[in-house]
Amino acid sequence: MQADIITIGDEILIGQIVDTNSAYIASALNEIGIRVRTIVSVSDTEEAIVQALDRSIDGAEVVILTGGLGPTKDDITKKCLRDYFGGEYVVDPEAMVYVGKLCERRGIQLSERNRFQAMVPDSCRTLRNRSGSAPGMLFRKEGSIIVSLPGVSFEMKDIMDQELIPLLKKELKLPVRLHKTILTCGIPESTAADKLAAFEESLPEYAGLAYLPSPGILRLRISVTGDNKDYLEHQLKEFTQEISSALGEKFVFGYDQESLPAVVGSLLLKGNFHIAVAESCTGGSIAQMITSVPGSSAYLKGSVTAYANETKVNVLKVSKKIMDEFGAVSREVVEQMAVGVREVLKADFAIATSGIAGPDGGTPGKPVGTVWIAIASPEGVQARKFDFGDNRERNIIIASVTALNMMRNRIVEYHENSV
Amino acid sequence: MQADIITIGDEILIGQIVDTNSAYIASALNEIGIRVRTIVSVSDTEEAIVQALDRSIDGAEVVILTGGLGPTKDDITKKCLRDYFGGEYVVDPEAMVYVGKLCERRGIQLSERNRFQAMVPDSCRTLRNRSGSAPGMLFRKEGSIIVSLPGVSFEMKDIMDQELIPLLKKELKLPVRLHKTILTCGIPESTAADKLAAFEESLPEYAGLAYLPSPGILRLRISVTGDNKDYLEHQLKEFTQEISSALGEKFVFGYDQESLPAVVGSLLLKGNFHIAVAESCTGGSIAQMITSVPGSSAYLKGSVTAYANETKVNVLKVSKKIMDEFGAVSREVVEQMAVGVREVLKADFAIATSGIAGPDGGTPGKPVGTVWIAIASPEGVQARKFDFGDNRERNIIIASVTALNMMRNRIVEYHENSV
Repeated sequence: MQADIITIGDEILIGQIVDTNSAYIASALNEIGIRVRTIVSVSDTEEAIVQALDRSIDGAEVVILTGGLGPTKDDITKKCLRDYFGGEYVVDPEAMVYVGKLCERRGIQLSERNRFQAMVPDSCRTLRNRSGSAPGMLFRKEGSIIVSLPGVSFEMKDIMDQELIPLLKKELKLPVRLHKTILTCGIPESTAADKLAAFEESLPEYAGLAYLPSPGILRLRISVTGDNKDYLEHQLKEFTQEISSALGEKFVFGYDQESLPAVVGSLLLKGNFHIAVAESCTGGSIAQMITSVPGSSAYLKGSVTAYANETKVNVLKVSKKIMDEFGAVSREVVEQMAVGVREVLKADFAIATSGIAGPDGGTPGKPVGTVWIAIASPEGVQARKFDFGDNRERNIIIASVTALNMMRNRIVEYHENSV
Repeated sequence: MQADIITIGDEILIGQIVDTNSAYIASALNEIGIRVRTIVSVSDTEEAIVQALDRSIDGAEVVILTGGLGPTKDDITKKCLRDYFGGEYVVDPEAMVYVGKLCERRGIQLSERNRFQAMVPDSCRTLRNRSGSAPGMLFRKEGSIIVSLPGVSFEMKDIMDQELIPLLKKELKLPVRLHKTILTCGIPESTAADKLAAFEESLPEYAGLAYLPSPGILRLRISVTGDNKDYLEHQLKEFTQEISSALGEKFVFGYDQESLPAVVGSLLLKGNFHIAVAESCTGGSIAQMITSVPGSSAYLKGSVTAYANETKVNVLKVSKKIMDEFGAVSREVVEQMAVGVREVLKADFAIATSGIAGPDGGTPGKPVGTVWIAIASPEGVQARKFDFGDNRERNIIIASVTALNMMRNRIVEYHENSV
């Protein structure tokens, strides 16, 4: 079962807006076992829309169009669909009630344009839009189902969830398709590929593995397709287990929609622990990741971005002598930063970073990309040195997620030691 | 002049990631006068890639592909392009140096897989990738230029900006198309539109104005197209002047590629001033924005994310009595935070934020979205209250940029007072 998604609108083609609707639709279709073949964005002209429709109906059993349905733009898409599928305009009663109420609320007379908003070609079946005036329109041609949805995200989502997905599940014979995403930090893509080479070789045809890298984080998505849901669920569990074991729990921090700062957060909550952060080269990025999690105020005491050396000495109680002797980017200083911020902010665990983010500041002995990360805990302090390369932005992100993953491992160890 | 953009990768088709690369590429092409006809996402199979290429080369003078260039098995783009355009694999020397250094840094042996990363078909011209191993590849066929770029965003952007756009401008006969982007903070889109209504009405046909809103920042892009470069440059300058005057310098913080933290940074450098930050609800986000600017260590003393109230008292010297009396989200506390961090970190200027980012923690008197921002300077401290709405993520960003813009205005005033 294959689907195509067509988004209509010049605002996407000039790069003014990012097309997020397609990802939502693709994900919803994929979840019920419909594979998306192509996502295409075309201009809001009749020629472009008709060409896209022709191509999609040739091969895709489901075609979903979005966009081009605003009160000014919708004329083009709707007229185009009427010409393409035939039929006469008729009033959709539910849509007319909605438009009438809208005009009443705004205290305006129902105009011709408003009335046209509530009209659809009688060649379609409408899908109710509970949060806007333009209903979804479902047409059929050459064995394909073609659906036009509004471009406004929450209206599109509402019709997808409430109307279209239930209809497709009922009408189409869909295979079962399941996914699991394994989230890792600290393992390069090529190393993971080497470790999983034998596993990948042994995968049966109904399963597939995809590598989804981003700075510092590598996601591995395993997918299975078939008829027997119980069997597939069991197999997916096995495969997930195998991947996790092959990579090791030091690297695997979670699954699916989990995030690294949220995982660290739940570990802290579980032990009723508090955390503090002292950042130099990461410049607030770790604090920002931690506080991106709602409820993080329950475990974050605070963070000090100690960019100036005097801040490291005055606030974090790093010894000036040690700083002068070893330099700010050193094991000695980063350890003192971690211990210092843990004490000053009265936390159980603390992270500290000190490094050279670049582009300037590197020396032959300490090139750009050199980063020291320390973790302080009730059991002491440990530091590690890394080399993250010479792109400043990337550097800061990788250093931050690496530090969070070290923190995660430290808390897990501490839990284990306490048992 | 028409272009097509092809993104390759199942992760887009299953809706796991949103395709942001295409918007970037579309916007960059549009800026130099190349119209994007179609953006299409296809599966990473040879059949899908070849079909997309065939369709694009038929009608588009420029075809840009992204994605599918990582080092693992599911990345078959390169093989597919070799089959499509012919040629033999050869080593790209620059890429090999990059891969070699990467392996050396990670202390791993150069594997066959690593070596293949640095190889390209000899039927292409390579475009240098300064921040990754896979170079861009430029092919020619039937009068079209076909370019393959890595899917990793910052690598793609780097090659687009540094290599491809200059090459296309040089090689293609493009009309003169000039742009100026006016960057504003603190002015809502509808207010800006009202203020610019008369100006927009008076714009000649060769000029256009686009509103590009993002949380807290509204960019206004004025574009002119024609043949006479000198005339267009002169007109663009006039239009830019008119827009800036209509909006006011409190809101206009810069132009084109400038960033708000960089503008604040240059003002600080100019006066040899130092800054400190105390963040509560923004959770490190302001520090992160400031430190995203290379060289920010010259003026940032540091930042304290004081999430816990005791951190506000212990580190920032906020009076416990004031805190108990007025609550953490209050004019009194945010002013003490700004004054405190300015003193503790020995800075000239300081920013402080305290608010309710959400989703929890709101009360009828202080709903989610309530944010106090204070600016401390050698001349005293001032605070303002805002209501940024109920989306946590958006809230944090708007509060951070608003605080930076208040800082900018404060430094400008201080400069003026000193003259």
